[in-house]
Amino acid sequence: MSEASDKSKQGPDFAKCDGLLPAIAQDVATGDVLMMAYMNPESYAETLETGRAVYFSRSRNKLWRKGEESGNVQKVHAIYVDCDLDTILVKVEQIGGAACHEGYRSCFFRKVTPEGFEVQGERVFDPAEVYKK
Amino acid sequence: MSEASDKSKQGPDFAKCDGLLPAIAQDVATGDVLMMAYMNPESYAETLETGRAVYFSRSRNKLWRKGEESGNVQKVHAIYVDCDLDTILVKVEQIGGAACHEGYRSCFFRKVTPEGFEVQGERVFDPAEVYKK
Repeated sequence: MSEASDKSKQGPDFAKCDGLLPAIAQDVATGDVLMMAYMNPESYAETLETGRAVYFSRSRNKLWRKGEESGNVQKVHAIYVDCDLDTILVKVEQIGGAACHEGYRSCFFRKVTPEGFEVQGERVFDPAEVYKK
Repeated sequence: MSEASDKSKQGPDFAKCDGLLPAIAQDVATGDVLMMAYMNPESYAETLETGRAVYFSRSRNKLWRKGEESGNVQKVHAIYVDCDLDTILVKVEQIGGAACHEGYRSCFFRKVTPEGFEVQGERVFDPAEVYKK
């Protein structure tokens, strides 16, 4: 079987977006959108291999094994790609209950209102405790 | 009140990412992630003003009033920003039932499996019918 016809090779199209595709993490149980980060081919391959979400940090320019510092890893339950094959949706179990480095369950903890931001949800952990220097 | 202290000005930070921020549309009723696109300041402002999701099409380099062609507009119920203020989450009611131009409810209709893509969900509409030339 040629590589082109091997269906197991079907995945995101990393030829797009300079090989850095947006990846949305969604809580598999609650449906909450937890965060958005980026994956390159290496982080995507490691995600598939390990069953833990691995992103590529643009600011640090290296693989970002989500939770490697905080312990709040994301167990991958399913991976989806969008119609253009250039966005990834990862359904995860968020260990520790919080995806956000600020201690909230979701990074999207601020709602836009006419009166400004409204914080929704409570902190699951104290960032100062978790990210000890 | 100075502009800096006006909380009603609180929103995404369009000084980041060259003013083009990822925007995730999530079905407000089901929690399904429907699509990901981009917003610039103009599309974000029009989204707030009209209560309909307006994106910026990178390929067409212009405002993309979602549903203007297909009629499948997205009524905005709530807008969230992430911890870095550079990703937008829009909770919407998807009129017509399908967000994807391929006729599926969600653009993320393909699951990655070891055997290749597995299409999940059925087509809500036939693209050839909706996007008549």
